[in-house]
Amino acid sequence: MSGEFTHFDAEGKARMVDVSAKAETERTAVAKGRILMSPETARLIREGAVKKGDVLSVARLAGIMGAKRTPDLIPLCHPLQLSSVAVDLTLDDAESAVEVTATCKIAARTGVEMEALTAVSVAVLTVYDMCKAVDKGMRISDIRLVHKSGGKSGTYEAA
Amino acid sequence: MSGEFTHFDAEGKARMVDVSAKAETERTAVAKGRILMSPETARLIREGAVKKGDVLSVARLAGIMGAKRTPDLIPLCHPLQLSSVAVDLTLDDAESAVEVTATCKIAARTGVEMEALTAVSVAVLTVYDMCKAVDKGMRISDIRLVHKSGGKSGTYEAA
Amino acid sequence: MSGEFTHFDAEGKARMVDVSAKAETERTAVAKGRILMSPETARLIREGAVKKGDVLSVARLAGIMGAKRTPDLIPLCHPLQLSSVAVDLTLDDAESAVEVTATCKIAARTGVEMEALTAVSVAVLTVYDMCKAVDKGMRISDIRLVHKSGGKSGTYEAA
Amino acid sequence: MSGEFTHFDAEGKARMVDVSAKAETERTAVAKGRILMSPETARLIREGAVKKGDVLSVARLAGIMGAKRTPDLIPLCHPLQLSSVAVDLTLDDAESAVEVTATCKIAARTGVEMEALTAVSVAVLTVYDMCKAVDKGMRISDIRLVHKSGGKSGTYEAA
Amino acid sequence: MSGEFTHFDAEGKARMVDVSAKAETERTAVAKGRILMSPETARLIREGAVKKGDVLSVARLAGIMGAKRTPDLIPLCHPLQLSSVAVDLTLDDAESAVEVTATCKIAARTGVEMEALTAVSVAVLTVYDMCKAVDKGMRISDIRLVHKSGGKSGTYEAA
Amino acid sequence: MSGEFTHFDAEGKARMVDVSAKAETERTAVAKGRILMSPETARLIREGAVKKGDVLSVARLAGIMGAKRTPDLIPLCHPLQLSSVAVDLTLDDAESAVEVTATCKIAARTGVEMEALTAVSVAVLTVYDMCKAVDKGMRISDIRLVHKSGGKSGTYEAA
Repeated sequence: MSGEFTHFDAEGKARMVDVSAKAETERTAVAKGRILMSPETARLIREGAVKKGDVLSVARLAGIMGAKRTPDLIPLCHPLQLSSVAVDLTLDDAESAVEVTATCKIAARTGVEMEALTAVSVAVLTVYDMCKAVDKGMRISDIRLVHKSGGKSGTYEAA
Repeated sequence: MSGEFTHFDAEGKARMVDVSAKAETERTAVAKGRILMSPETARLIREGAVKKGDVLSVARLAGIMGAKRTPDLIPLCHPLQLSSVAVDLTLDDAESAVEVTATCKIAARTGVEMEALTAVSVAVLTVYDMCKAVDKGMRISDIRLVHKSGGKSGTYEAA
Repeated sequence: MSGEFTHFDAEGKARMVDVSAKAETERTAVAKGRILMSPETARLIREGAVKKGDVLSVARLAGIMGAKRTPDLIPLCHPLQLSSVAVDLTLDDAESAVEVTATCKIAARTGVEMEALTAVSVAVLTVYDMCKAVDKGMRISDIRLVHKSGGKSGTYEAA
Repeated sequence: MSGEFTHFDAEGKARMVDVSAKAETERTAVAKGRILMSPETARLIREGAVKKGDVLSVARLAGIMGAKRTPDLIPLCHPLQLSSVAVDLTLDDAESAVEVTATCKIAARTGVEMEALTAVSVAVLTVYDMCKAVDKGMRISDIRLVHKSGGKSGTYEAA
Repeated sequence: MSGEFTHFDAEGKARMVDVSAKAETERTAVAKGRILMSPETARLIREGAVKKGDVLSVARLAGIMGAKRTPDLIPLCHPLQLSSVAVDLTLDDAESAVEVTATCKIAARTGVEMEALTAVSVAVLTVYDMCKAVDKGMRISDIRLVHKSGGKSGTYEAA
Repeated sequence: MSGEFTHFDAEGKARMVDVSAKAETERTAVAKGRILMSPETARLIREGAVKKGDVLSVARLAGIMGAKRTPDLIPLCHPLQLSSVAVDLTLDDAESAVEVTATCKIAARTGVEMEALTAVSVAVLTVYDMCKAVDKGMRISDIRLVHKSGGKSGTYEAA
């Protein structure tokens, strides 16, 4: 499989990969990402979490719901019955950033990396939306897969 | 409006901002982002574009369609009748990266920053999906708003 | 599990419950509900069913399709492959009401209560929509789970 | 229009009402509803709101997002560009109930009653989902339109 | 515009056409299509319409709802606020066929041809689905635009 | 099952067929269809494929994504976890037509004929959308099931 894009056939035509011959196994994927902001925005998020509206709770829910929309968004993703989605957001005051971790699980013939990455993406986009009235210069960064297990290709851990 | 999150009311409850008193004006938003990859993956994308499957074409289309799903994904975004979406992807061989720019336009009472940012996010997620069989270590980075015009708050250009 | 909301983790963060350790069993849920209206509106529905447009047929179809949208609507619901949805609507002339019963089935690791309740809700909302030009005072009432079987918690029958 | 269902033509065929000749005016709709539960469940919701997961915040967000899905759910509803959605949930300890009020606004050729009613319905369904592990006997009740203004038919206030 | 595909830019990249400089006018589109079947299937549909389940009513509703999903399905279509959708199905016994006509209207900067064609397509697909247990050899045919008015390009009538 | 529509119960009420007693088997469906156009339009598509925008690539992707939306479009279709979707489009110069073939696979209790037919329909609708600026007279034709295997009713091959 190395050196080949599986989403194209021999003639270069895009396709949804045929997973019907794969075994149904328990699969997990974990993705991470962050959104960088001004110290003032980070302060407002922290204060809101304790006494006013909680940006991180809204973004967490959006991330969970976003994971379910993955096959609607990513053209060649399989529709899947996710058995678990968890999205964790923490405010890093030192870095003036919100860190997001999403964990998806399924018993299926294909993995859930895209679901975890989509959950992270939608969560940070939601943070942007909630805070853009005070900070348009926020920057989404470092969205990547950090762990993947289950399936033929075995376990992957980001370096 | 400075120092206040508009998506919460005085009691800190999340809401879709009431834009019914705003004027309907022409609005444009431009967002950018990138996905970093191994030189080998960048080489495969470049070769595919000329002789096999074209990763960037698939991602461009996914980005355009993704912009239309923004109100389904971002909890407090208004549903909007976008009048234009363009997504541009270029392969940067020196950086081993795909650069994405999305431009959205509308005549409405609220802006389209989130639509542009969502288009970029879905486009880079699709690049990840298409290439993940050969490179799980890709990293999505630098998604940000670079331009916004129209509406009461005037024109914004990223520093 | 008693006395604990399963949709929050130990820190009170919302999550989609991890069902990956649960057994896949046949599960059924039945929900009921009603919409109360003026005798005149009930009469128009009854007449329409035999000679003009049939409100109940439209609402039945909307209820079935609504069951399929449950994971898009209820934030922490799992996406599911429903194996059966039936929605029954009857006009109760004595009460000037439409009674709705929805039955959903699945072979899965989690139940379909929410799918049955959503089917009932969408069906009665559709009755409201179809009849609102003649009766804005209709009232949706008594939506509840009446039966649930399959899964570890066993069979539930409403009192 | 009295005594006639507008969603059927002269032959009784369902249709989306043609609003192209209507004036675009500011329209508002307010709907209410409630979900009844055991005192123990109400107590858990109240405690959660202050120290653990907040059921009402999740349901509020689900209601807002649900309003946006109205044209996907209700067969003959027009797709609309909502300009505002607010969903308010309060816990009524005396009644052991959660009360929901949804307010929708738009500048359009048709009203937003269904959007307000759908927001209420999705919010109470979400409360059910979050609490069903401890209380399957909850009952959704009294979903109705309480106010409507704008448009040719004028202002409606529930009795 | 003749001899040029408007959905590609000068470099051949797909885009949603920018309609922001177009005038908002009243636009109408009418599309037609048919599904051919065995005489026995046509007979079952006719009988069902009077005494059992009505295939044509279900397909009509599916067509109306399908029109609303057009921007989700057709990659470069603009999201639109349709002001009217009507779908008419008639059984042609002589031809053993169901004939479908869909009419869509809007006040917008772009036309609704795709909405009318999608409504017809979803309606005939639904007839296929309802009847496939008795007739797998049905054939969908002659889906085409028959009328278009409004907008800069003027009125189109099929030959 | 012959001579009976399975999507209605004994009283003629529409329902999603209960497949919970069916065996989960590997199932495949292949559908075909075409869109007829002027020779000039066919020539533009062919030229675009080699030097400008590629209509067929966009339509292929739309067809694949359309297959995933089948349960949202066809009222009584079951939601399914497709394991493979492939859509093939070829330009037939002699006929001035684009021919489409869609192949869907699944391991499930119900077949994927509707998914294959929907993929074909969305692909040809997308060809229409991409080419309509130069040719409004295009005609969609001959959408039909050509092969079905798996499940109790055995293999079907179109005559």
